Amino acid sequence: MLNAKVFTVEMNAPDDVSGLKDLLDSGAIKPEEVLAVLGKTEGNGCVNDFTRGFSTMAFKQLLADYLDTSPKEVEKRVAFVMSGGTEGVMTPHATIFAQSEEKASAPAEPGLSIGVAFTRDFLPEELGTMTQVEEVAKAVEAAMAEARIDSVSDVHFVQIKCPLLTSERINDALKRGRKVVVSDTYKSMGYSRAASALGIALALGEVNKEQLADEKIASDWSLYSALASTSAGVELENCEIILMGNSRHSVSKYKIGHSVMEDAIDIQAVLAAMRDAGLEFAGLPTAEQMKRVVNVFAKAEADPTGYVRGRRNTMLTDSDINHTRHARAVVNAVVASVVGDPMVYISGGAEHQGPAGGGPVAVILEK
Amino acid sequence: MLNAKVFTVEMNAPDDVSGLKDLLDSGAIKPEEVLAVLGKTEGNGCVNDFTRGFSTMAFKQLLADYLDTSPKEVEKRVAFVMSGGTEGVMTPHATIFAQSEEKASAPAEPGLSIGVAFTRDFLPEELGTMTQVEEVAKAVEAAMAEARIDSVSDVHFVQIKCPLLTSERINDALKRGRKVVVSDTYKSMGYSRAASALGIALALGEVNKEQLADEKIASDWSLYSALASTSAGVELENCEIILMGNSRHSVSKYKIGHSVMEDAIDIQAVLAAMRDAGLEFAGLPTAEQMKRVVNVFAKAEADPTGYVRGRRNTMLTDSDINHTRHARAVVNAVVASVVGDPMVYISGGAEHQGPAGGGPVAVILEK
Amino acid sequence: MLNAKVFTVEMNAPDDVSGLKDLLDSGAIKPEEVLAVLGKTEGNGCVNDFTRGFSTMAFKQLLADYLDTSPKEVEKRVAFVMSGGTEGVMTPHATIFAQSEEKASAPAEPGLSIGVAFTRDFLPEELGTMTQVEEVAKAVEAAMAEARIDSVSDVHFVQIKCPLLTSERINDALKRGRKVVVSDTYKSMGYSRAASALGIALALGEVNKEQLADEKIASDWSLYSALASTSAGVELENCEIILMGNSRHSVSKYKIGHSVMEDAIDIQAVLAAMRDAGLEFAGLPTAEQMKRVVNVFAKAEADPTGYVRGRRNTMLTDSDINHTRHARAVVNAVVASVVGDPMVYISGGAEHQGPAGGGPVAVILEK
Amino acid sequence: MLNAKVFTVEMNAPDDVSGLKDLLDSGAIKPEEVLAVLGKTEGNGCVNDFTRGFSTMAFKQLLADYLDTSPKEVEKRVAFVMSGGTEGVMTPHATIFAQSEEKASAPAEPGLSIGVAFTRDFLPEELGTMTQVEEVAKAVEAAMAEARIDSVSDVHFVQIKCPLLTSERINDALKRGRKVVVSDTYKSMGYSRAASALGIALALGEVNKEQLADEKIASDWSLYSALASTSAGVELENCEIILMGNSRHSVSKYKIGHSVMEDAIDIQAVLAAMRDAGLEFAGLPTAEQMKRVVNVFAKAEADPTGYVRGRRNTMLTDSDINHTRHARAVVNAVVASVVGDPMVYISGGAEHQGPAGGGPVAVILEK
Repeated sequence: MLNAKVFTVEMNAPDDVSGLKDLLDSGAIKPEEVLAVLGKTEGNGCVNDFTRGFSTMAFKQLLADYLDTSPKEVEKRVAFVMSGGTEGVMTPHATIFAQSEEKASAPAEPGLSIGVAFTRDFLPEELGTMTQVEEVAKAVEAAMAEARIDSVSDVHFVQIKCPLLTSERINDALKRGRKVVVSDTYKSMGYSRAASALGIALALGEVNKEQLADEKIASDWSLYSALASTSAGVELENCEIILMGNSRHSVSKYKIGHSVMEDAIDIQAVLAAMRDAGLEFAGLPTAEQMKRVVNVFAKAEADPTGYVRGRRNTMLTDSDINHTRHARAVVNAVVASVVGDPMVYISGGAEHQGPAGGGPVAVILEK
Repeated sequence: MLNAKVFTVEMNAPDDVSGLKDLLDSGAIKPEEVLAVLGKTEGNGCVNDFTRGFSTMAFKQLLADYLDTSPKEVEKRVAFVMSGGTEGVMTPHATIFAQSEEKASAPAEPGLSIGVAFTRDFLPEELGTMTQVEEVAKAVEAAMAEARIDSVSDVHFVQIKCPLLTSERINDALKRGRKVVVSDTYKSMGYSRAASALGIALALGEVNKEQLADEKIASDWSLYSALASTSAGVELENCEIILMGNSRHSVSKYKIGHSVMEDAIDIQAVLAAMRDAGLEFAGLPTAEQMKRVVNVFAKAEADPTGYVRGRRNTMLTDSDINHTRHARAVVNAVVASVVGDPMVYISGGAEHQGPAGGGPVAVILEK
Repeated sequence: MLNAKVFTVEMNAPDDVSGLKDLLDSGAIKPEEVLAVLGKTEGNGCVNDFTRGFSTMAFKQLLADYLDTSPKEVEKRVAFVMSGGTEGVMTPHATIFAQSEEKASAPAEPGLSIGVAFTRDFLPEELGTMTQVEEVAKAVEAAMAEARIDSVSDVHFVQIKCPLLTSERINDALKRGRKVVVSDTYKSMGYSRAASALGIALALGEVNKEQLADEKIASDWSLYSALASTSAGVELENCEIILMGNSRHSVSKYKIGHSVMEDAIDIQAVLAAMRDAGLEFAGLPTAEQMKRVVNVFAKAEADPTGYVRGRRNTMLTDSDINHTRHARAVVNAVVASVVGDPMVYISGGAEHQGPAGGGPVAVILEK
Repeated sequence: MLNAKVFTVEMNAPDDVSGLKDLLDSGAIKPEEVLAVLGKTEGNGCVNDFTRGFSTMAFKQLLADYLDTSPKEVEKRVAFVMSGGTEGVMTPHATIFAQSEEKASAPAEPGLSIGVAFTRDFLPEELGTMTQVEEVAKAVEAAMAEARIDSVSDVHFVQIKCPLLTSERINDALKRGRKVVVSDTYKSMGYSRAASALGIALALGEVNKEQLADEKIASDWSLYSALASTSAGVELENCEIILMGNSRHSVSKYKIGHSVMEDAIDIQAVLAAMRDAGLEFAGLPTAEQMKRVVNVFAKAEADPTGYVRGRRNTMLTDSDINHTRHARAVVNAVVASVVGDPMVYISGGAEHQGPAGGGPVAVILEK
């Protein structure tokens, strides 16, 4: 039987790995059990956000020390997904996913189960194309198998970290006579997130291959995954997948549920996700129930129309603050007000991740 | 009897006054009834936010045209309070307050009533001092009398627009051998808001004069008003006061209630304010009830400790985005998620306006 | 004979029109002689920069008062071109162009001469297309005729203010089944500037019509005008043209010259423009010569390669500050260090305005 | 005899240490000779700039690998001074200082010589006080001795990296009942830079101890060092000093000279520094001379009056971009235009470093 464990640790700086260190020192987690680190780091979450790479370097080094190996070896077995941007009251933090194999009888009800997988490195000209979509789909299937989840209906959240185009990578492609999908580095983040999300949707049967084509990527918003969360960063050239679901092969004491926010202030979807994970309440959850929430994972994006509930906002015309930053502040505030804790994971840019202007929201609970 | 009317109109740009124009053209408001315009404009809400002045210039010109007088004359009788900053999903908009005298019998229950007053212009060296506190207190008392509100317990929200220090004004004081309270122009906004808020608290008996002194201003956060909302701007040199409450001398079809948010994600306080205004519901309000909400007025500020619910946030250490901008996005999102509408008034910088990190929240309802 | 006058006045805020008022009150300019106001206002110079509109509103009102007419009438005869963004040490200011007809004999040497023209309003779908290029070219020819300049070699600077796409305008086009050139509002500024610049190049014979096509706009940087300066703003829907040159029909005591900066730190081009206008010096100009400079007009843009003199910069990957803002700070500093005055006009975004990464630079001198 | 070597290497990201790696691999520098790494990293240069720490971590790790020791040991012998902020065209880069002992006869003319020293860690309450001033002065004297420079007139540039106050450090002091000099984290950078600069001035006899007191720090701008450059960062708790001068005990093939910029556009001071280092030219330097410049080091700050050459600028009232960012863009542009290379070291915040609004500028040349 699998046994998945999840811990959320506060970070005082991008390179503050003391939370994981404490878990390792106390024996709460064994170093070889660590599957993935999913962080929110305090950069701008856009192109020149180096807090993601800084944090990754620090976590890798820590695990290398505990595993008595090199950072290079660590990155082959552990997924480090750092999402930048902690706007509003969002607390910089990391969620540590660990999993072990245990001899045990099948549990009464399915438990949380985690699968991790990696794609190959992508060429700059492949980013944002069907090649990326298909490679991601294969990796998602591999992660699902690793998590021993039989049915796509038991998958509740798939987080991907994917690359972006830098001036350097663009020039590399151009020198080789190749075209890239977009020459604006900030925009390339959107294309890479979009292709990754459609890869998830393809793997989970939310869209079929006939519906997809290069020109649909970052364009046809009717195609989406209800449980994809993808995040782009300058610090990697392949995609890293963390898949979360419930499995009857897992004796984990945690469970996961999800829902879909229709827009950035969809408080009802947050409540629905909490209920889907197993909480029962009318109105708002009780203080007791709030304490059982380990973390909430949600995506945020500016509505591409510039309107929410028929009302104009200025996210898309704000030339001082990128719209992903506005959007994260909003969704974090809505979730935090419901669970009574600002330390929840909200990641920006939800292309093909839930409906336009909305996004998936997943809740991990202690059973 | 007084009859107060309140309308909220969307603005497509700082100088978009078409909403008020439509109200005037349709006869919903008569030009001579207009008491105050309380706007949220789409600038940065900080020192170099000229959207406030732009909007004020446009509204004044419109009313001057309809009243067949000059903008100068208009500003003597109408309060224009523009608060900059529409972060997150907040919709740029204006709330128009109009009031007329009517022969009518006393209403069954008190109705909304508005009072407007102005202080004299302040010298740069008076900003952020007891002089400002005392002048504001006098003007608040005048506004209360005008609104025919007998008891301070019937006052529910007091909005003030106050001046700030610019490099020019500071130099003017220095040339005359005077000291200003702070030489940082952005910081001066906080001092001016703070002194204005304490002026409200003094007038309403929330603090007494013995507790106050120059050195308490923007320093002793235990002193505050539970219903003050003050906003600083470069476009004026005096304070403009809009006081809102319920009066038994008002036959208005609107009512107001309020509560105090303990922190930026205090969803319970938003619900309490809705109940205080007269709505009855368990859990969250119904769609029908949401429609009766004309507007919500709340203050937002970064918690001075850098923590909310014991969790760190990065508002105060973010050198790219001012903390007031983060805070507005958060409080707007929480309120919008409850009332189902992002067009609510959230103003930043809540010095002495509610407890540290929190702030007042008021709701105007159609009865 | 024409007699062109040029005055540069400092502005303490976007609506500070006291400089022009002083000129009118002192009789230095007659209100009916004012042809154009070319301002640098202290906004972000990007999409949500409302300082341009605020300033335009204030200047129009002032001239309407002096001409005893309405702002609407003023805008038919005077060009108001406000360029946002005063980064670095750049001083917010306005250059006032006035021109009168005088009976006089032909001057010994040609003098400064100004022509102003306007295009019709553009539909959203026309922005950034050949339609805009051709309409601008026609208006430039009209401006040249008005300035009584016979040869294109006597034209030294052409400033255009052009519209941009807003969410509203895009939606308007989409509703009518039309496509716009780009759906990103910030990017639309670049397309509009690009089409305007190619319109100038076409009118002045710097490119010919066979070289042009929709797909060359904002794409083929080998096509450019060496004396175009175009600036986009939300506050207008047509293009306003201010053309400057030397004419033998002008008895003006001013002269203009220009050169082309190859990159943002091309100090030699600034010196060449000063010499082209008539100053003679080795090394750097003398203090006496600096005083004869009325204003310098230059364009600034991030080099699209991300490199200047073979060295990387981070303008294009900076998600906190738009690259046009970086570029203006740089070119202003270079020019200011040479002329000893930070009050020079540097406008951002130099698509087809000089070579990629560079731009035109013109100098107006007192003879 | 000492032999100082200086190399400037471009960085493609904060953790790009390939330039130093190439120098070590080629044998141009031996790892044990490395004394200091002085970097310009591409963050915002303000409080939440983690590119400095990221870069430091990467350089330390590289040197630890080559020296076969731990990063902890490396930091005891090598000074890593990372200054954030590469606005405008400034190229992210690092200057590598190496020095070896050689048997050689005394050189014909003095050569470049480097001294490195460290203070003890400071308590939060000591930052920005005379304690910091005095500890820095002691360390500067130690660095001068190490560089074998006999006279203060042979010192040409002293670079210090100093700590700042974070919310955490402030809370730590408050818990222990101590006061900190300022509670605004961004402002604390200025106090720490100021105290460090006065420490240099004290050590070099530019001010004497009687002139100094806690209340003069970051307040009395008449006190300053003409060759101090101090830079604050979150990644350290002590001060690191890199002192540069010419010594007759050095056979280095490099030389250094300096001058003082009176304001941000003081091009004459840049030329004077080049001449002070040994170049002879009229007007501007030749292309051949430009190639001999290894690096230029200068400080930039917003003029505290808000004016340069009597002209207003908006650095201090810009609530979107911190004034240090504006100032760096300006000074970099001026220097780059003169030396024909944007890869020069400009660091922001020049409190007590040169006159108010100006700052030191030093040039290292190949002889």
